[in-house]
Formats: sequence, structure tokens, C-alpha cells
Amino acid sequence: MPCITFLSDFGRRDYYVAAVKGVILDTCPAATLVDISHEVEPHNVREAAFTLAAAYSCFPKRSLHLVVVDPGVGSSRKPIVVAAQQHTFVAPDNGVLSLIFERENISEVVEIRNESFFRKPVSPTFHGRDLFAPVIAHLACGVPLAEFGPVSTDFVTIDLGSVRCEAPDTVRGTVIHIDRFGNVITSIRSTHLSAPLDVTGSRQVEIDGKKIDKHYDYYAQAKPGEIFSVIGSSGHLEAAALSCSAAELLSVRVGAEVRVRSVLSESQATRSRTSS
Amino acid sequence: MPCITFLSDFGRRDYYVAAVKGVILDTCPAATLVDISHEVEPHNVREAAFTLAAAYSCFPKRSLHLVVVDPGVGSSRKPIVVAAQQHTFVAPDNGVLSLIFERENISEVVEIRNESFFRKPVSPTFHGRDLFAPVIAHLACGVPLAEFGPVSTDFVTIDLGSVRCEAPDTVRGTVIHIDRFGNVITSIRSTHLSAPLDVTGSRQVEIDGKKIDKHYDYYAQAKPGEIFSVIGSSGHLEAAALSCSAAELLSVRVGAEVRVRSVLSESQATRSRTSS
Amino acid sequence: MPCITFLSDFGRRDYYVAAVKGVILDTCPAATLVDISHEVEPHNVREAAFTLAAAYSCFPKRSLHLVVVDPGVGSSRKPIVVAAQQHTFVAPDNGVLSLIFERENISEVVEIRNESFFRKPVSPTFHGRDLFAPVIAHLACGVPLAEFGPVSTDFVTIDLGSVRCEAPDTVRGTVIHIDRFGNVITSIRSTHLSAPLDVTGSRQVEIDGKKIDKHYDYYAQAKPGEIFSVIGSSGHLEAAALSCSAAELLSVRVGAEVRVRSVLSESQATRSRTSS
Repeated sequence: MPCITFLSDFGRRDYYVAAVKGVILDTCPAATLVDISHEVEPHNVREAAFTLAAAYSCFPKRSLHLVVVDPGVGSSRKPIVVAAQQHTFVAPDNGVLSLIFERENISEVVEIRNESFFRKPVSPTFHGRDLFAPVIAHLACGVPLAEFGPVSTDFVTIDLGSVRCEAPDTVRGTVIHIDRFGNVITSIRSTHLSAPLDVTGSRQVEIDGKKIDKHYDYYAQAKPGEIFSVIGSSGHLEAAALSCSAAELLSVRVGAEVRVRSVLSESQATRSRTSS
Repeated sequence: MPCITFLSDFGRRDYYVAAVKGVILDTCPAATLVDISHEVEPHNVREAAFTLAAAYSCFPKRSLHLVVVDPGVGSSRKPIVVAAQQHTFVAPDNGVLSLIFERENISEVVEIRNESFFRKPVSPTFHGRDLFAPVIAHLACGVPLAEFGPVSTDFVTIDLGSVRCEAPDTVRGTVIHIDRFGNVITSIRSTHLSAPLDVTGSRQVEIDGKKIDKHYDYYAQAKPGEIFSVIGSSGHLEAAALSCSAAELLSVRVGAEVRVRSVLSESQATRSRTSS
Repeated sequence: MPCITFLSDFGRRDYYVAAVKGVILDTCPAATLVDISHEVEPHNVREAAFTLAAAYSCFPKRSLHLVVVDPGVGSSRKPIVVAAQQHTFVAPDNGVLSLIFERENISEVVEIRNESFFRKPVSPTFHGRDLFAPVIAHLACGVPLAEFGPVSTDFVTIDLGSVRCEAPDTVRGTVIHIDRFGNVITSIRSTHLSAPLDVTGSRQVEIDGKKIDKHYDYYAQAKPGEIFSVIGSSGHLEAAALSCSAAELLSVRVGAEVRVRSVLSESQATRSRTSS
């Protein structure tokens, strides 16, 4: 009973998501289908890349993951299958798998070319239904990867908010996502920080020039309305506010600059100047 | 493992969709449930009819399709089961299956009357849970169609944007749906056109009096912001715009008039006048 | 094939819902997962309590129900398992199960403490994924309740719109939910009323001081725009309006006061005065 996840920007109102699922079940009726999200902002490949990266590793080994955020549908962008050690990904080659290439040990990438698996006629505007769905269903049914097309060694990756370590203990990144709660998720992960952030305020988070002095481990430590930083469940540094939207309070958007830097106390600063 | 799809205007926030699924699984725990949409505009039978028609045929043979967009719930409108050759439909008899009657070879229509299948007491405001759900679950479990009630030969169909062919090569229809991307979907299908639309601009699409000169096969052929026509994945003629909403750019709504007509080039026009 | 339902305030755009499902399927791949809703207003424990209560009893016996509306995540609020006779509930102990305690015959409540079932490391901001999901999956797989922690006899319940019977036949309650259709759902259930409401207008419903004179059994009895009361499908007294939002027409919100009282006809009133 293979598990197939599905992530798209199709929304939930139209027939697009159901059409893809129908085609998958027509070939592989035993598949367990799970939605990751269909509310990705239309054509926002970056948001889809982040969302996929935060969810896929929760699924069982041998899961297959379908991503259809595909502004180039019908054009010459390639459809690909990416086989990692425990998971397989099917997507357009437009960078949406960038974080998979970064984090996973990839065993093979295949360009999907074998039209005998496609649903005919292939609509040039809906490869999700006519190309990606039958391919992932046949993969789930055990058709070997090599049947779908030639090995590809050339694929697109995009920069999803690079992180730079500047002065010792100063790290720069960007806001990569605002979630439903208004949490401001940054490209900086806990592994980028030389030491854990803590409540002593020895280091300061700054987003779009606005300083955040508090750091907590979980939301309920904060007072209502107070903005604080927290390491979120995806391992990324976030700005949050209890029971309200940190994104609104800070007026920040995706793309805003983020900085984490040491804030020396006065005595520490004196000592630091003396010793230098 | 029968596949049951579900289409409604219940939205996703309330308990309505879950209650229906719970009742189905209580009778038929092996069913594979797939949502088509629950975001149909409340009571919009036309939108539901279009959405169903665009999705159902992707599902495996012997799938069952439940449609609960039912402004007349509790009144004398009939609940019906419609058996086509490969699919079975359960819905109120309010026109929501009009396109199924048009496209499918119907083998039988039954009016649901046998109350022994209903969940008791039947809420007069929620036949989705108390009448339709147990009926489709028992159908999925193999209960014969005749058990549910008498054959019906009198059922409601509605006009979902009729298409008229006027002068040779002039076709009139209406806008029947605006999707999440702002694509403007018309009642005119590729089969209504005497020849495929092409990029030569020999024929012009006009929606609500606004002319659309470009026709493409897929979105990525267009420039950002450019309005063009395209045969969408449901086989319908659409107006679209790359990375923005054609519906907003054109200020059109569902119901607007659509016209496709020949635009003769000057030399063709001269020739045409001479030969006439 | 155990049925697991899932109710949260996570929304549908982010990866949160999928992460929880992935973790459940990783332990219990045969589970049938059904969403109740993920559109509960963020942190609105009352709305979640009402939504759960209206849906869970439709599901098969031995279903498990996961509720993650958890403003106190990471703090000292307890995670609990509540075993009723036919259903099992897993949730934070914050009152979200209040209506379950009220309506079900509870056989046992266990405080979840056994960390060997948790997904490691446990994110202090996402117990849905790291604590609740693995616990409900192991429960679904047959792990005995006692394995998860000690019996608890002390748990939180909240008042979800209490109902008071005042003068004979006068009942007071509050608005507890506004649904997608604008129906105004009150805390007053049909069982609170000494006799059924009927169309004779012998009793009057008042919400936030606004009088509602009509009572119908189902929506299609009303004229468009007319406000009426109806016993909704959850058994609660509702105010509704055909094809429009009663909540907007009445300008009422959750929390507004509701009153149902006898309206004696003139002759009845005279008789009443005479006899007293």
C-alpha cells in the first residue's frame, strides 16, 4: 500500500486536485493519497519547495511525493523523477526540489520522456493530470525508474534564502515564508547558529531592521502581543507573537532581510574593548 | 475497494463534510473517499455541475460520485441515483447532473425512497448525512439499485451555457466558471469549433464585447499580463493571462457572453467579396 | 483498518496537517485518515469542541479522534487520551473535550507521559507531530491505553454556552458558532425546549435583542432573505436565512445572548391573567 503525497498550487475549489487523484487511483487503486497542500500561492515555486522540505520526511519510507507547481507547463521545462534513498519525488524541473537535492542523498534523476505512460491526449495546460499522475501511479505500482526516460545529470536548483555567516556569531538570511498564524519563518536554521538562542538576550534577531529582543522555546512562554523569536518545528528560526500575527506586527514580507548578532552587555563590551 | 468521490458546497470549516464521510465509512469501511471540492459557491448548482463533469471521468470504472449541492434540502425535490455505464451518481434531482445526462449513456435512474437505508432520525436540513451518505455507502457495498426505490423517467436538467452556431464559423456561448487562477472558462468546447483555433489570429474570441486576439496552446507561450485564449484541460475554450487573473483584466463574470468568429485578412476579405 | 479523524486549527496552506498524517501513517500505514476540519479559528478551543461534538458520533465504532487546537503547546498543560465506550480521543487537556465528557460514558482518562512513544527530538512548538500523532497511531495499532501514562482524574472542562431555563418555557443560551452559510448556531438544543418549536409563532426566539418570529423545519420553506429559526442538523437551535447569511442580517457574533420565550396570543394572555 504505497503512500503518495501531493503538493500543488491548484487550490481546493476547482476540479484539478480531484482529476489528478482520479488518474492515480485508476492505475494504482491501493495507493494511500495524502495532501501536503494545494494552497501554495499560484506559481510560487519557493513556497512549494519550503513546504515540501518541511513535510516529506515525516512520511513512511518508500513514499512517493508529487509536486505540481508548474508555471512552465507545456513548455520545454523537463518533467523529472528524483529517487532519494527513502523517498521518490516527481515534479517539473523548475527548482521546486532544490531543498531535496540539498538535504537528501540522491540515487538517480530521470527525465520523464516515455509517452506510453501518459494519459492521452496530453493537455498542454494540465500535465498534473495527464503526465505526472500516471507516472507516479506507475512508479507506485512498481514500474522501474529506467522505464520512464533517460538519466539526467542537469537539473535546476534555486537559491531559497541563502544564509551567510559574517562576523563571528553574526548570521544573515531572509524571510522565506509567512504561515497561517502569521509566524515569520526565516532561512536561518538552528544548525546555522554557533550556539542556541536563549532567553538571556545575549543575541538579537533583527528582521527588516526591527529588533526582536525576546527568545522563547514555545509560544505559551510569551505574553499576548509580545514579539519573540523561536526555533520552529521545521528547525528554522521564526518570529512569532502569541495569539496574533508577528508578520502584521512587524509589517514584514517574504524576502525581508534577517540578521542574528551578538549583543554584548556593557561589562562584556568594556572587557571586549580592553582585550582588543 | 470502491472509490467514492464527494462534491459539495459545505466548505471546509464546519463539521458537515466529516459527518458525511463518517456515515459512509460506518457502512462501507473499505471505501476510498476522494474529495472533488467542497468550495462550490453555496447553492450554485451550475458550478457544481461543471466541476463534476470535469473530474468524474478521471476516476476508475465503477466509481460512485456523491454530489450534495442541495438548496431544496427537506422540500419535495427528489433524491436520485443515476447509473451510467462506468460510473454511478447520487444527488438531489435539481439539475446538478445535467452534464452527466448529456455526456453519459445512462442505464437507469432511480428515485431514492426506501427509508430503511436512511440514518434516523433524518434531519430535514442535512440529507447529505442522513440520506445520501448511507445510500451511496450501501450502493458501494453492492446493494442492488432497485432496492432504493422506483425507476424514474422524469428528472431535472438545466441549461449550463448553451452554445449556438450562428453564421458559418461564428459560435456563441457564455462564461460558465472562473477558476482560482482567474481563468475564464466558457461553455464553448473545442468540438464546437469547425477548426482548431490557432496563433494566426484568423478567428477572434470576444468575451463581454472585449476582443482577445491571441490564441496559445499553453500558458508559458504568453507574455506576462497578455490576455489570450486557450483550450483548457476540461476541453473548454478559456481566456487566460500569464501569472495574473484574466477575469480581473477583462472584468468579466459568470454569465457573460462569448463569441468566436472568423476575422478575414484584407486579401481574404476582398476575395470573399469578389466571389460572393 | 482503524479510522482516525483529525481536527485542528492548522489551516490547509502550511505543512502542519501533512506532517501529522505522515507520522501517523509511518506507524500505522493501514489507518483510514479523515479530516474533520483544519479551519478552526486559531486557538479557538470552543469552536473545536463544538465541531468535534457535531461530527465524531457519525464515525464507526472504535474510531480514534485527534484534536490539536493547542494554544498551550510546550507548556505544562497535559496531553491526554480519553476512552469512551465506542470512541477514543487524543487531545491537549484544555477543555476541547468538554462536550465529550458531558455526552459520553467515559471509561478512562490517561495522561500521556511515556516518552518512548514520542518522535524525537520533540519540538516544543509542534506536539501535534511529535507527541499526539505517534500516540494515536500506536493506540490505533492496538497498544494498550495503560502504556501511555497514569490514569488521570483531574481534567479541564469549559462552559460552552450554558443554557438556563428561567421562567417556565423561557430558555437562555448563547451563540456558539457561525457556519459557512452564515447560520447562527446557539447553545440551546431541542432537548432544552419543553415542546418543539413550530410555525404557529407561539414562542419567539431572540438573539442579541433581535426577534425572530418564524420557525421552519428546513431551509426551502423560507422566502429569500427571511430570517427564521430551525433545529439544525447538530440538534442545536439555529437562526438561518435562505440563500444569505443570517449572521450578517442580524449582525450577531459568537457569544451573543439567545432567548426563547412563550408569546401568548391575546386570548391566551387574557385567560392567563384571569387564571392567575
